[in-house]
Formats: sequence, structure tokens, C-alpha cells
Amino acid sequence: MMETMESCVPPGFRFHPTDEELVGYYLKKKVASQKIDLDVIRDIDLYRIEPWDLQDRCRIGYEEQNEWYFFSHKDKKYPTGTRTNRATMAGFWKATGRDKAVYDKMRLIGMRKTLVFYKGRAPNGQKTDWIMHEYRLESDENGPPQART
Amino acid sequence: MMETMESCVPPGFRFHPTDEELVGYYLKKKVASQKIDLDVIRDIDLYRIEPWDLQDRCRIGYEEQNEWYFFSHKDKKYPTGTRTNRATMAGFWKATGRDKAVYDKMRLIGMRKTLVFYKGRAPNGQKTDWIMHEYRLESDENGPPQART
Repeated sequence: MMETMESCVPPGFRFHPTDEELVGYYLKKKVASQKIDLDVIRDIDLYRIEPWDLQDRCRIGYEEQNEWYFFSHKDKKYPTGTRTNRATMAGFWKATGRDKAVYDKMRLIGMRKTLVFYKGRAPNGQKTDWIMHEYRLESDENGPPQART
Repeated sequence: MMETMESCVPPGFRFHPTDEELVGYYLKKKVASQKIDLDVIRDIDLYRIEPWDLQDRCRIGYEEQNEWYFFSHKDKKYPTGTRTNRATMAGFWKATGRDKAVYDKMRLIGMRKTLVFYKGRAPNGQKTDWIMHEYRLESDENGPPQART
């Protein structure tokens, strides 16, 4: 990946995508299995990796980073259910606050959920400083009621 | 320039160069008349452009910016002298603070001077919020005594 980066992105450029770019370009192409110009966002299995191990897997070039980007499939808690299981070996990701709508100009294109990592097992667990933003595609046509404001 | 940008730099990348990249890559290549991968830094004549007109000339893509990058030749105050003239029609750039050394790892590669824009004419003039960082190549071999610490 670093070779790809260095052969394409000139010195001085940093990956600081907006929510709109993450959803409207990267996630949309990923979901549609379309080619993404540059392999900057890694595929990982979020349920098999602890937050503190993400940086080695998702590093971009040689930069100091405090944010890492990745794609991961959602795991179902139960095979027949719709609840999402976000547990790892060491802990679990728990949603916090309200989901935020992501717009391309005036058009709804996705939602952003914020999650906090807790060490241990729900409903207990010790809150940590690890924060994750989970993006999903969504449009006015298929969005949930709370997104239609 | 925007076409060049869009054909090369993938979505989500922003130009946030470090001092070391500005001096060690962009300025070094410019001074040596070598090819720079991407034409992100414009040539301007700093003495013929007011700070508030820079943003139109030095815009990168469609981003909101509050920093602009450019190359400009130094103007001599008097043809035979070494003092630099940094006046425009509306005011002048005045150095402030001490120059900062720019290193590539442990090696001195340049210096960064900070200047403030004053409206009016020296020695009077009204200080503004416009700040410029002026970079120059310099090495331990040709540096001034104050850079050899």
C-alpha cells in the first residue's frame, strides 16, 4: 500500500477525508465493488482486532496518525436477527449519542454512528478513549424516519 | 491546475505539507528547475499582489482554505544591495520573531522567516492578521552563524 501511495500522491498531501467523501466516494464504491483509485482504506475484521492494534494494520505511509480508516463487514449478533454484534476479544463497541446524517449538498447519502470502546463484557465494561465513527449508506428513499427531518 | 489535481490526487487528500516537505521537496526542486509532480504551488509576484488577492490565485481544488502556498522571487530594495523589498501597493510585509531552522532529520535544509502584513508605508502602517512564512534553502555549509547552534 505504501508503494501505491508514494507512486501517486505527491509530497505534502494527507488523507483527511470529509464525511461526504468517506460515504459518497469510498463507501459507495466499496459497497458497489467498484475500483477505488487508491487503496488507502484497508479491509479488516473489526471483531477480531482490538482498537490498539488498528494502527499497524491501517497505517498510511509514514505519517504520525491518530485516526485510522478501515472497511469491515457488520457482524450479526444472532444469525437470524438484525442486532449488530460489535464485541472483540478484549471488549466491545457501544453506540453513543445520535447518528449524524451525511449529506452530499442537500441530498442524504449516509449516516454516521459514533461508538466508544469498553474493555470487558456488556453490560459492564470499562470505558476507554477509543472512539469509532461507523458510516453506512442511506438515502431519503430508504432512510429511517428519524433521518427525515 | 484543478484538472491536474483531480486526475491525480484521490478524494480525501488535502495539501498540508510540513516545513520539511516544503523546503526539502518543493523549494529544492523549484530552485533547481526540476519537475514537481503536481503543480500545487503557484508562481506569483508577491510585490504585485495583495494578501487578500492570494486566495484566488493560489486556490487548490474546491476546498475551503485559510493557507495558500506560492513561489515568488525575492525583490531587491536597491539593485546593488542585499536588503529585500517586500512592499506591495497597499502595504508591506515585515519580519517578526526569529527565523526557524528547517531540518530533514538532523540535517539543516532551510530557514523559515515569519512576516506580518502592514497596510500603509514603513515605518508607519497598520498591522493586519495576514501572516506569511517565507522559506529559503540553507545548509550547515552555507548557513549564517546564527543557524549553526
